[in-house]
Amino acid sequence: MFESAKIQHDIDKASFEEQVPQLRTDLLDAQFDLAEAKNFSVILVFAGMEGTGVIDALTGANTVLDTRHLNTYAFDAETEEEAERPRMWRFWRTLPPRGEMSIYAGSWYGAPLTDRILGRSSNADFEQELQAINRFETMLAEEGALILKFWLHISKAEQVKRLKKMKGSARTRWRIEESPWGGSDRYKKVKDSAEEMMRITSTEHAPWISLNTENPYYRGLFLGKTIQNAIRERLSQADDKPLVTAPVELPDIDGRTVLTDLDLSLQLEKSEYKKQLKKYQDRLNELVQHKNFRKHSIVLVFEGNDAAGKGGAIRRVTEFLDPRSYRVNQYAAPTDEEKLQPYLWRFWRHLPRLDHFAFFDRSWYGRVLVERVEGFCSEYDWRRAYGEINDFEQEMSDAGTIVIKFWLAIDKDEQEARFKAREETGYKRYKITDEDWRNRGKWGEYSEAVCDMIDYTSTRNAPWTLVEANNKYYARVKVLKTICEQIEKRLKKKK
Amino acid sequence: MFESAKIQHDIDKASFEEQVPQLRTDLLDAQFDLAEAKNFSVILVFAGMEGTGVIDALTGANTVLDTRHLNTYAFDAETEEEAERPRMWRFWRTLPPRGEMSIYAGSWYGAPLTDRILGRSSNADFEQELQAINRFETMLAEEGALILKFWLHISKAEQVKRLKKMKGSARTRWRIEESPWGGSDRYKKVKDSAEEMMRITSTEHAPWISLNTENPYYRGLFLGKTIQNAIRERLSQADDKPLVTAPVELPDIDGRTVLTDLDLSLQLEKSEYKKQLKKYQDRLNELVQHKNFRKHSIVLVFEGNDAAGKGGAIRRVTEFLDPRSYRVNQYAAPTDEEKLQPYLWRFWRHLPRLDHFAFFDRSWYGRVLVERVEGFCSEYDWRRAYGEINDFEQEMSDAGTIVIKFWLAIDKDEQEARFKAREETGYKRYKITDEDWRNRGKWGEYSEAVCDMIDYTSTRNAPWTLVEANNKYYARVKVLKTICEQIEKRLKKKK
Repeated sequence: MFESAKIQHDIDKASFEEQVPQLRTDLLDAQFDLAEAKNFSVILVFAGMEGTGVIDALTGANTVLDTRHLNTYAFDAETEEEAERPRMWRFWRTLPPRGEMSIYAGSWYGAPLTDRILGRSSNADFEQELQAINRFETMLAEEGALILKFWLHISKAEQVKRLKKMKGSARTRWRIEESPWGGSDRYKKVKDSAEEMMRITSTEHAPWISLNTENPYYRGLFLGKTIQNAIRERLSQADDKPLVTAPVELPDIDGRTVLTDLDLSLQLEKSEYKKQLKKYQDRLNELVQHKNFRKHSIVLVFEGNDAAGKGGAIRRVTEFLDPRSYRVNQYAAPTDEEKLQPYLWRFWRHLPRLDHFAFFDRSWYGRVLVERVEGFCSEYDWRRAYGEINDFEQEMSDAGTIVIKFWLAIDKDEQEARFKAREETGYKRYKITDEDWRNRGKWGEYSEAVCDMIDYTSTRNAPWTLVEANNKYYARVKVLKTICEQIEKRLKKKK
Repeated sequence: MFESAKIQHDIDKASFEEQVPQLRTDLLDAQFDLAEAKNFSVILVFAGMEGTGVIDALTGANTVLDTRHLNTYAFDAETEEEAERPRMWRFWRTLPPRGEMSIYAGSWYGAPLTDRILGRSSNADFEQELQAINRFETMLAEEGALILKFWLHISKAEQVKRLKKMKGSARTRWRIEESPWGGSDRYKKVKDSAEEMMRITSTEHAPWISLNTENPYYRGLFLGKTIQNAIRERLSQADDKPLVTAPVELPDIDGRTVLTDLDLSLQLEKSEYKKQLKKYQDRLNELVQHKNFRKHSIVLVFEGNDAAGKGGAIRRVTEFLDPRSYRVNQYAAPTDEEKLQPYLWRFWRHLPRLDHFAFFDRSWYGRVLVERVEGFCSEYDWRRAYGEINDFEQEMSDAGTIVIKFWLAIDKDEQEARFKAREETGYKRYKITDEDWRNRGKWGEYSEAVCDMIDYTSTRNAPWTLVEANNKYYARVKVLKTICEQIEKRLKKKK
């Protein structure tokens, strides 16, 4: 993967200085147009052999570009707030909104590559991590990010010389990074690992570009022109979404689905309800005090038919929880900051810290439910969402988050009765809108979307629980019982 | 301040349960209307004697209110990210946007009160901190927050009984907080300190309300009704801003101002400029490596006439800085998330961590410059901004931030020449808009606003530096030199 990067270019200072003013103007113009159009974001990843001047390249970029629309990030040890959330949370925090650029040194490639170079991970681990990165970058690209990844290369002889020299100058002393990879002694190991990384993660929408950096003028012109060309090219493209092949339509043999198979006549008497409710609320309180609980956070997703009783169920769960330990998130229309980010960004920003609960009263599943049925996004977008959501929940689970998801199901008659009852109470918060009645008209389409959602996103670490909710007492107890059981199971695992 | 709170109320369970359903409906309706209207936010502060059930009150509130529009916060030890920023940053992070509510236990009163009770601060320190809180709450109120502060009271005999009892029940065990104040032994000290706190910080826009909490039914009804009444009352009010008394107009005796007194003919030759630039860039690099630098962060404010060369000056400063160590912030129109928050919120969110720089290419001074002159805010709003800005910068300074502020001044002829030159370059980023020419037409009004700004906000810890900027070389060197000197001065102080 380094063939071109072995060429030792020979650009002289005069020719460099002749070309820089125009290049700078072109770059600023491209950035200006991007900031105006706000139709995509630019993500630049810089990595390279030790001593290649990754920092010099960053400095160069910051000198030439408009830093008001550019942020540069490096990632060392995680802060406490970062360490308590999924691994990728720190990167999600820094993603550029559309119209802006972020440059990453020590990006999401940092930890996997270092682990591999130092022999802390197997080749299989490494590949697995890189595949996860591929999915992440694919998602970013689908969401409209322009991603360019640069590998800065030098020969071993040059590396030896440079590492020695860099320590000499007072003006560049701060640029000398520690050598986490061990300097030139590990040159081959670094090269081999980087090659493996590039082989697996160089994709059509997020390519690696390696370049020889021994001649700084070549490096500067090459980086500048590549970035400028890519932005300019992308600006000139129409914003067409790729087409999706018509998916196979599954035949309906006997009309049975996971929803029709539910026994919605299940119910609890009030006295039994009160007994059971207390039992599981007490149980939940005990679990929260378990010593292993502090190593986890809890994400609770509540989806369901309109008027299925999500709010009431959530209240029964929170009733005896420490109010400082949870947050109930609800999602209305995205804010304009959220609109400039990938779809999942507004959920990432509300992930709980360890020892905390986050309730989602409707969630990221909106994409494959209401947005699918109402046509608020393209078929391509909601189809790719299944995989993105599974990755998202896997990330959480890997970080110790217990992900518990409920679908509260009622039947059409019960919904009608509840809508009418709500209309009669007259309290504004229960106002039934025309939209509610309209959604009801698409009962079949919603049911189909729900069944697909359950099939595609019920995973070992984040399974769906279907809740028969015609009887509220029964539903609330089942929710609480499920929460207790799932937390219990996970806490035991840790022992 | 506790007279009413000494009354031992006697509400029975039956009468409580009779009133609760209606109260709950009223509260939810008020919350619903607030969420729709989005014209103010609600901030509830809970504090009280140990054992009064502050947590019970929070739980009660969360049970009764709609938790989708409510967040509950408590503050223990600062996280690493919080500790590296001004003391109030953690509270700014959690302020409710308009339309929402936040409940604070362990609010901004937590640390000052505990320090006073444990004798770690003098009475004068205590009063000083409380006065700062007063200014903070005044600002919140001016920005449209409804603030209610509740002090939960009980008699000493009851406290002794309760603290003992709370340890007994498994279900409430998590509610037993540590006793940072030392339990009943310090009852009088707590009472006296709280009284002092309430005396100083009970204001017409953020009153303390003390209540006896020995009868839980009384407590519940009292809190619920007070909160509901306050929201309802405020919803019914017109959104009129208070009037400001006509300020004294200062007579112009000889036409001299801090701006007219500048010698705009100051200049540097190119060769001298290059020498000086390198000198101070090197000096800055040395300062950044100073061992005390890690205890500071740097906030750099750049204001100036249009086309005065702010961007060019910033670039000369950042040129040899580690690109990962700084961020250049520019403020266009506020996002819709920002619009729902107090004016200064969008600047607070970009304050740098220790060891980092934040450049502000235009800043919070927009309030007293463009917003004043163009009438984008009321006179009352920009007049109160001077004090709020001074408090903001004092907060930064107290936290180790070095605040450096520049006004880049050019004269009218120079501006015209630069506008015309920019129009001729034809690069889009330099497009001169009609607005630029219009602003120029208000030269006199802007000058007056600048002079007021300098007078009101040049403080010992955050002084303004006026930069003669007709000659760009001179201006850039003065900026760099000033930065070096101010950092140097502050680093020396620490020794």
